[in-house]
Order: sequence, then C-alpha cells, then structure tokens
Amino acid sequence: MSSERLIYLPLGGAGEIGMNCYVYGYGKPGKERLIVVDLGVTFPDMDGTPGVDLILPDISWLRENSDRIDAVFITHAHEDHVGAVGHLFEQLGVRIHARAFTARIARGKLAEYGISDDAVQVASAWPETVQAGPFSVGFLPISHSIPESSALVIDTPAGRVIHSGDFKLDTTPLVGEPWDPVLWGEVSKGGVKALICDSTNVFSPQPGRSEASIGDNIEKLIAGAPNMVVATTFASNVARVKTLAEAGARAGRSICLMGRAMRRMIEASIETGVLDSFPKVVQSEDATAIPRENLMLIVTGSQGERRAASAQLARGKYHGITLKEGDLFLFSSKTIPGNEKGVIRIMNQFSEQGVDVVDDHGGDYHVSGHANRPDLETLQDVVNPQIVVPMHGEHRHLREHVKLSEGNGRQGILAVNGMMIDLTGNAPKVAEYIETGRTYLDGSVQIGALDGIVRDRIRMALNGHVVVTLILDEEDEPLGEPWCEIMGLAEVGRSDTGLSDVLEADLSQFLGRAKAKTLTDDERLEKEIKAIVRKSCQNEIGKKPEVTVVVSRLM
Amino acid sequence: MSSERLIYLPLGGAGEIGMNCYVYGYGKPGKERLIVVDLGVTFPDMDGTPGVDLILPDISWLRENSDRIDAVFITHAHEDHVGAVGHLFEQLGVRIHARAFTARIARGKLAEYGISDDAVQVASAWPETVQAGPFSVGFLPISHSIPESSALVIDTPAGRVIHSGDFKLDTTPLVGEPWDPVLWGEVSKGGVKALICDSTNVFSPQPGRSEASIGDNIEKLIAGAPNMVVATTFASNVARVKTLAEAGARAGRSICLMGRAMRRMIEASIETGVLDSFPKVVQSEDATAIPRENLMLIVTGSQGERRAASAQLARGKYHGITLKEGDLFLFSSKTIPGNEKGVIRIMNQFSEQGVDVVDDHGGDYHVSGHANRPDLETLQDVVNPQIVVPMHGEHRHLREHVKLSEGNGRQGILAVNGMMIDLTGNAPKVAEYIETGRTYLDGSVQIGALDGIVRDRIRMALNGHVVVTLILDEEDEPLGEPWCEIMGLAEVGRSDTGLSDVLEADLSQFLGRAKAKTLTDDERLEKEIKAIVRKSCQNEIGKKPEVTVVVSRLM
Repeated sequence: MSSERLIYLPLGGAGEIGMNCYVYGYGKPGKERLIVVDLGVTFPDMDGTPGVDLILPDISWLRENSDRIDAVFITHAHEDHVGAVGHLFEQLGVRIHARAFTARIARGKLAEYGISDDAVQVASAWPETVQAGPFSVGFLPISHSIPESSALVIDTPAGRVIHSGDFKLDTTPLVGEPWDPVLWGEVSKGGVKALICDSTNVFSPQPGRSEASIGDNIEKLIAGAPNMVVATTFASNVARVKTLAEAGARAGRSICLMGRAMRRMIEASIETGVLDSFPKVVQSEDATAIPRENLMLIVTGSQGERRAASAQLARGKYHGITLKEGDLFLFSSKTIPGNEKGVIRIMNQFSEQGVDVVDDHGGDYHVSGHANRPDLETLQDVVNPQIVVPMHGEHRHLREHVKLSEGNGRQGILAVNGMMIDLTGNAPKVAEYIETGRTYLDGSVQIGALDGIVRDRIRMALNGHVVVTLILDEEDEPLGEPWCEIMGLAEVGRSDTGLSDVLEADLSQFLGRAKAKTLTDDERLEKEIKAIVRKSCQNEIGKKPEVTVVVSRLM
Repeated sequence: MSSERLIYLPLGGAGEIGMNCYVYGYGKPGKERLIVVDLGVTFPDMDGTPGVDLILPDISWLRENSDRIDAVFITHAHEDHVGAVGHLFEQLGVRIHARAFTARIARGKLAEYGISDDAVQVASAWPETVQAGPFSVGFLPISHSIPESSALVIDTPAGRVIHSGDFKLDTTPLVGEPWDPVLWGEVSKGGVKALICDSTNVFSPQPGRSEASIGDNIEKLIAGAPNMVVATTFASNVARVKTLAEAGARAGRSICLMGRAMRRMIEASIETGVLDSFPKVVQSEDATAIPRENLMLIVTGSQGERRAASAQLARGKYHGITLKEGDLFLFSSKTIPGNEKGVIRIMNQFSEQGVDVVDDHGGDYHVSGHANRPDLETLQDVVNPQIVVPMHGEHRHLREHVKLSEGNGRQGILAVNGMMIDLTGNAPKVAEYIETGRTYLDGSVQIGALDGIVRDRIRMALNGHVVVTLILDEEDEPLGEPWCEIMGLAEVGRSDTGLSDVLEADLSQFLGRAKAKTLTDDERLEKEIKAIVRKSCQNEIGKKPEVTVVVSRLM
C-alpha cells in the first residue's frame, strides 16, 4: 500500500447550510497537494453576529499551507459557494476555475478588490478537465436553480471522487443543463470511490418537483389578479426569475426587474448566453407609465432583507412605485429559518397597504432547488459510490444522510467542519482534527469569531454600558468627582434619582474612604470601581452593565 | 338616542400575537366607565429588544384614566393573557377577576410584588356574573389548551358583547370544558351586538383537530422507542402535558416532569382540582434510578429557550440526566416564528449526541390550541353577532378575519392597538386614536419602547463603542494626550497599528491645531471629536462607531 493518501477536509458547509468550502488533498501525510472547492459565505444576524457584514470560512489552515494549494474550483454562482472569492483570494493566491457564467460572477467580486480577470480561468464542461497537481477535475453538469451548476469529477491516484455541489434531479430545469442519468451513469461506471453529497433536503420525504411544474400555477395567479402584481424570489435563483417572467408575460404583463442583485444576475446570464428567450423587460423608470393591471414587478428581498426592494415597497415606495389596495404580492420562495420575523414584518406592512400577500401555497408557487430524500437515493443508485460523505447540511442533516446511505448498504461517514477524512482505504476514517471556525467581515476588516469583539458588542446590547472617568492628582488623590456616562440603561431607577448621580455619589463615597494602596494601583482601583457600579446598578435598575473605567493621573 | 356609548379599545394583541390587553367602556364620551380584559406579556428578542426581560402593554392611557376603571378580567392563565398582572397591578389599582385556576396563577405573580391574594377575586363560570360599573361580566367556558379557559359575556346597556378569549372548538379537549354549541347558542339567542374574536389561525384552512386525536400516535411513538424518551411542549399547555403523560404511562413509562414552570403549572392544576387522573410522576432525583427504557421525561423549552430544560439537556446535563445515542426527543409543539434558530440549535446538539429528534410530523404529535378558519365561521354561525371585531392577531390575520366575516355577510372592522371603536350604533366606527406602544421590563425598571434606551444598545451592538476622554487645564489647553477606549471593534485596521493609537494620534493632531473657540466650547469640541473618531474608524476598519466623549476641565 502506498504511503500517499487521499483526504477530504470540510472548512465550511459541513454542520451548517451555507458558507461552503471543502478541501481535497493527495500525497504523503502532511504534504498532500491540495485543491479547494467553493469559497462561500453565510449571513450574519442580530442574535449571534450583530454588526457583522458577512461570515466567511476560517481558512487559517489553508493560509498556513498555501504553498500546497494548486487551484480553487467553484461549482456554481450562489453566494454560499462563490461569495467569499473576493475576500479570500489574496490569502490563497491560486487560480480559480469555474464555468463561464460562474466565472463572470466571480470576476465581478474580485474586481471589487482590484483583482484582474486572469485570476479566474473559464472551464468547459465535462468531458474536458482541468489538471491541478495530482488532480484532474471536470465540471459535470447537474440541474439546480442557476445556470451551469456543476458537480465536480475529481480524479486522483486513489480513485474517482464526485463532489455533487448543490443539485436537484430536474429533467426540465428551465435554466442550466437537465439532470442526465445516462451521462452520470457513464461517468460512474468505472467505479466511484466517494460521493460527497448535498444534504439540504434529506428530511423531505417526497421526490422533488421540477421547476417547470409551477409556471402554469403562477400564470393563473397573475391572470386572475385585477391590479399590479409583484413577485419576489432569491436574486440568484435565475431559474425562478425566468419562470416568473415567462408566466407574467404569458398573462399579458410587462415585466420589470427591480433590485440591483437581480438585474445583475440576469444581465450576466444573458451576456454569457446561458439564458435564452428571457421576456423583454421594461426599465423601472418606464414602469410607472404602464397601467397597473398590465405590470408585473419581479423584485429582490424574498427573505425580508431590510434594504431590498420588497422591504422598501413594504415601507412605502421604491423607484417611484407605491403599492395599493388590491395589488398582489407573491413570495415565490421559502423562508430560511431565522428570517421569519423579517418576512412576517413585510407581510404585515403590505397588509396595512391593503395588498394581498400570497406565499408558496404549499408548493404551488415554489419548488426547492435541492434533491429530496428519494432523489438522494436515486443519485446514489446511479453513481454507486463506495463511500458517501454528506456535506452541505447541519449536523442533523449530515447524520440523517449517513443513516440513509447506511440503510441502503453503503458506507457513510459523518464529517463536520475541521474533520479531515482519509478516503484512501476501503473504509473512510478520521485522519485528523483541524482547528477551524468562522471569520467575520466586519466593516473592512476580517476578524475571528472567537476574538471577543462581537461578544463585547453583544454584551453591550444585553447589559448597557457605563463609562467612569476619574482624575487623580500628583498625590494620587481624586481631583474633583468621578464622572459617569451611561449608554443603553434606564436613566432613573429605584431611588427616583438620576442613575449617573447615584453612581457618582456611591463612587465618591468609596473614593473618600479608599486607602493609598488602592488609589495608587490602577488595576485594583478599576476592579473596585467596576464592582461598585455593577452593584449600584443592580440595586437601582436590576441590571449589571458593562463598565469601562478610565483613570487619568496628573503627573 | 342616548349620548352614552359603548367602546372597545385594544392596547395589546391587535396587530400582534401575544401581549393581550383590551379595554371596554360604557358612558358619556370621555367619561366611560372602563373594564380591562387580560394583562398579557410578549417576549423580547435580540433583534429588536436586546437585554429586555419582558414586553408589557403600554397602559399610559389607562393610568391617566385609572379613576374610571372598575375591574380587570383575565380570560385564562397563559402568559400572553396574565403575564403582566404583577408588573401592572399597582398602576391600575383595581380588583382582578378570574376563575379559580387562573386566579391561582395570577396570585403567584402578584405575590412576587408582595401583593396579597385579595387583589384577585375568584369568579364562577357562567351563568354567574360579576358586576363592574355598567357592565355585567360572565365567564363562558370554551375549550383551549389550559384549564378554565373562558370567553367573556359582557352585558352593557348597549347590548351583549362576547369576547372570545383564546379558543378552539374541541369537544374532547382533555382539560377544560369542551366546546358546547348548545350553551353558546343559548347565550347568544337574545342577540349579540359584537363578537370580539381570536384570529390566530385564520389562515389555517382545515377544521381544527381535537387534543384527543394525538394521544394514540404519541403512545405508539413512545412504545416503539428502545431507550429514554423526552418530550417537550409549552409549560402552560396543560392539556398537552396531560396527553404526553398519559401516552407515556400507557406505554409503560415512569413519567418525570422537568422544568420549574411546568411543575408549577401542573401543581396548580391539581391543587385547584381542574386536572384529575394525571399519571403518577417521579421526582427528578429519583429518575436516574429508573432504567432508561422505562423512563419518559416531559420538559420545558419547546421554543429553544436557552435556560429551559431542553436546552440544558441539549448542552449536556440536566438534574443529573444526560441523553445518549438512541434516545428519542419529541417536540410536541409548533415553533413560534422567530424561535426557529434556537430550536434548530437544540436539534443539532441532540444530533451530535446521537439522539433522534422528532417534530410534530405534520400534525401527528401536535394540534393547535386555536380555532382554524372553518371553526371561526362555525362560531360566528352559533353566535350570530351583528359585528365581528377580530383580535389576537397580526395585521394580516385581523385583515383576513374581517374579509372572512364580510364574505359571510357580517359587519367587520379592523381595529389595531390604540384604535378606539364605537360599537353603539348599527355600524362600528373608529371613535378615536389613542397613543400607545409597548413597555419594556428592563431589569427591575419599566421603560418605554421609544425612550431610546434599547435603541442605544442596538447601536452599540451594530457599531461598537469608542470612549474618548480628554482633560483640559485651567487655560483650556489639553493636558496630556486624549485617551481612547474601544469596545466591540477590531483592534487593528488598515494601517496595521492599534486602532486606539491611530485615533489618539488623529485627535492629538486635531487638538494641536484647535482654536480657543473650539477648546472653550464643550458642545463644539465634542461634536468635532466625534466626527474625527467616526472618520478615522471608517478609514481604518470600515465602521462608524458610537462615540462617547468625556471632557474634564481642571478649574
């Protein structure tokens, strides 16, 4: 047996839905040549990441081993697969490979960092392949909800691995190549060592439905609407935007796309030739001239995002357009867990305007872009892999997917972010645990999830902040009174006096009694002041705030 | 026509689900005698109310008119109907009326404020009534998910009003009185002026199912489980706790209740005699001695609450019990919008422990406690009110409920919090808009939602906080350098130097050039310092923080 090995290491996407980033390696242990598959992002929220702009994979391990990386491959142009290329490219310093449409989106992101188009090499679809160190990698078309979505066929000296990317089994997907079991059968017939597979919908028991199954329903809905129609979906769900636009056009409506992300996505699709026959669209400045009953807007913001077109329409106006009593608003989308409150807020704002809101209606107006449980089984049957490694899922999805595979008599292994799996032998095994986490893009800076910065912000949000300033003279005696500024705390508490007055009085009393060994010792002084402030606040308002103490000494 | 009028004024619950508080009045305009129905709470979240302990109705208007209030009535003992009695009782200063079980829960809350049991008067069910000013009020039993849930029959000189409270039409509810259409028909046959009605499930198209419909499914699930079984539901869903306990007992399990809120609720039910035949329970300290396959825990925390029993079990241990591979955890509940992430977090933690998690499974293991759309129509048919006023719903629910009523040929009116409705004439009309909002219980203090306190906390969470301290001497010249403390911001930015060093250098430079008219003017000085700090931070880290400036002048 060779001492070289084939490894798989997820750095994002295994233990969560989003932020996909996977590493494959081949070579002697610790010296494997590496390729990276996907550089995605996930989105922050007020709960755990207030003020953060984007969440990126933690690529410290790749940075430390950057001389071993041969290439990056991007499976498709969704944000959770391509969103981090701009932010992380320079830390990796290797070329990115992607199909034409994906490449165009990636280049747009790199351009924001002033990185030239050369950084991305356009790859053709299977059977063409890209050589990268010991790997030969082909982009194998598979249906999803965006053009040119691809699985990767990764050939290694230890055998062939198929990395599914995001997919569904759709023979009429509207955009992108249809699911082609014959092609997939041919690719697999020589034997597939491992299938690394999307797990998103492993809990959905019914076979997935085609994108083509909802167009007629949507057309009927629009045809029956007496006034303006507005529909929203993910900006990057190019298939759905097309379904909506075509349904609207068939119902006799002029189509207007609103929201920068959506317009950009459709432009890129048209320019790269992957979206033919898209209905003619009107510009938003011309939309207001069209009678309301002849107009259909397709807008961004299906997840309730505050700045997107949907939310702006819900608040009143967007590009001169205001919704009215009797208009129809369609959510052709599923609400991602965590976004419910934002979506419901918009629904209620529309309700206040008299707008009728329609959601996916049990599937009439939305289908998922991911493979359901029976579809996962179908793919396994076609590929017939020796090993199944679930990815793109929370822990519960990965676990269920392993169970499903084992139930069908295959070997499965549950690998979460940071778990390096050795795929060389007959049975997969854990080779190593890599320390990894998440990186936050915070303003223009990348910070670690565990740096404590966001934790401090959360603490201020929960507890409020008291700032105490104190001046000590040359003899270490307090000069004047201590001064307290409070932020985010009730101004008056139990004793019906200003909270800062109470705190200042308590601190003055303490300072009046404080011994020299306290007054000369910054650390001790700060500690005691904090304790007093916390205790007084607890008495006054029932909260223990964060406290910052600034002691200035005149010298 | 008399110049007296009958008014309805929602202060909470109309435009939201939760925080129920409704006012009825009768008399000359502006001098109506008033009664209050329900004093509920709603729960804070990190998004909009970080650090807040509870959200209460804003009763400023009631406080200003407290001499006009004759009584408070509580329909049932759920937190969103009774949770605020302790916090608001002293501001209202009138007696609370409730049925025995509800009274016991209310008294527990008042006791925390040292208020005696006399504050609550126990009322009997209809046909007995309570006189309160011009009102005669009866507690009309109706099925829900907690004992003694009641609608209120409110007789006024302008006619009979029925306030539904929370309800479902369940003829086998397990706890509480069954839905009795004959009784309701008798109460209504003299004519009902207005039905003020729960709207929670107006979007659920199928008739509601009985609590009795899920017991067998749950029993089967438990009987098939090889190891320990844990089930969670709302602590106050007494009916479900009973369903779960009985199903477990039938499956041969010893039952152990865990979580203070749940134990308290069941104790209160048993002591007030409203819960007969509850299976014998074992204490948590004895549970560990029982073989795992013979044990069933029923625990709090169905909404993912971090401190509840479920979350503690998910994190590792609760009262000496640790879950293991092959145990079963059942969510016999629906996740309230906004709580998804917390619930999913727990599910994944259980997945990591190898515990199998089962959710409501499309209704097999959970039914709602509220009336669905056809049930609302049934109630309207039985009561045959002149006017329907939807309550207990978000705007979209209220609007849909009005549409439903009007579609059935009834008068409906959409009234949100603060909208005073005149019900006297043949058609309801808006009489007045009352300024109202929400009150936050923040630590031990009640603050207004618009006081800016929580807004400041949110700003610190999003933007971080910089504190600048500066000492000026007797000649208004800076004494030493300015000092910057940062909290919740990256320590190093673009220029690879400590952020506070950069800020201090920029501020020193500014102070070196500052003219006397700036240095002698606190307001101007503060404004300029804030602007510099924001600009430097934007340059360095791409964020504009909150800034607090403390200028100390030696004199």
